[in-house]
Amino acid sequence: MTEPELLPILGQPVPERRDAARNRDALMCAAARLVDSCGVEAVTMDAVAEAAGVGKGTVFRRFGNRAGLMARLLDESEAAFQASVISGPPPLGPDAPPYERLIAFGRARLTSNLANADLLLAASGADTGRSYAAYSFTATHVRYLLGQLGVRGDIALLATALLAPLEVPILRQQVNIEQMDVERIVAGWEDLVGRVVSGPVTP
Amino acid sequence: MTEPELLPILGQPVPERRDAARNRDALMCAAARLVDSCGVEAVTMDAVAEAAGVGKGTVFRRFGNRAGLMARLLDESEAAFQASVISGPPPLGPDAPPYERLIAFGRARLTSNLANADLLLAASGADTGRSYAAYSFTATHVRYLLGQLGVRGDIALLATALLAPLEVPILRQQVNIEQMDVERIVAGWEDLVGRVVSGPVTP
Repeated sequence: MTEPELLPILGQPVPERRDAARNRDALMCAAARLVDSCGVEAVTMDAVAEAAGVGKGTVFRRFGNRAGLMARLLDESEAAFQASVISGPPPLGPDAPPYERLIAFGRARLTSNLANADLLLAASGADTGRSYAAYSFTATHVRYLLGQLGVRGDIALLATALLAPLEVPILRQQVNIEQMDVERIVAGWEDLVGRVVSGPVTP
Repeated sequence: MTEPELLPILGQPVPERRDAARNRDALMCAAARLVDSCGVEAVTMDAVAEAAGVGKGTVFRRFGNRAGLMARLLDESEAAFQASVISGPPPLGPDAPPYERLIAFGRARLTSNLANADLLLAASGADTGRSYAAYSFTATHVRYLLGQLGVRGDIALLATALLAPLEVPILRQQVNIEQMDVERIVAGWEDLVGRVVSGPVTP
């Protein structure tokens, strides 16, 4: 039942045994299903092991701890989001005009950040829980689209200004404390994009 | 040396003994001085007790723990900030036109958030560490100024859009990771205000 550790060859990825790969897929699948059906709070290492039909030790060896498991789930979700931006169908993907892509990006990011809010908190106790790599991807994409739209100004800071209201603590506050409707937040973001893209009117 | 606990009278504030008030002032003063000179990291309950010339037990009774002490320091800083917005000199205070007040607010908030970044993290492990009451004050102020400027749209969401880039995790990332100059961030925020206040240009 145990997976023997192979000595890694320097500079070469360790080959994954076929049953280990199967275990990993089963675990990720079981964990994602549990999160979807019961919420992040209810997902324990025990529950994942049971749902995937593997020993508890396998889950711990694979993810280290609960935060590690949540971080991996987040990585998978982030990878899927990035793929749909890079090569998915329009309006999020490349076959749409830049303004439509930007609007679609905001809606998709807002929705996925809200959906992953509990996962983000469970994955890390740090500031926002989102990795700098994930932020960097979204920042690069928004900068690119602002450039395509011919926006003048400090594009890096304007991109951050568009991304900042989509951060999880702000969305959670709007939805959970101020009881704002998600469609209202989306509409507000689209209005913000309109103002940022139009540029300041000099009287 | 111990401060006897008085039974509180329901609905009445417990009168503070004169030596307890002196202790509190001495402790807050010593803690603030230590933070200024050595940084948040270096400030321990022991160091504060020694600097204020009181017993360690007094510091723990007063603040509970280190996070409690940091939260109190933050409260004092927040109260001073709010006072300067409500009744301080222009351009932050009321004797300035709304646009100048808004620009002054952004600069002051950005500076104080950066200065208090370590305090915010030490005071709490939660999302941003800032209380909803503190957020609520700044949101109300920015909404009021946008109203004074005749800005049309969803004022609550536009105020949040202006406040979001001033949140500590974003500022820390810009300054510590992306090595951005603070003056550049301030200028970027002023440009954002110009765009938000101008409104979207309908072609």
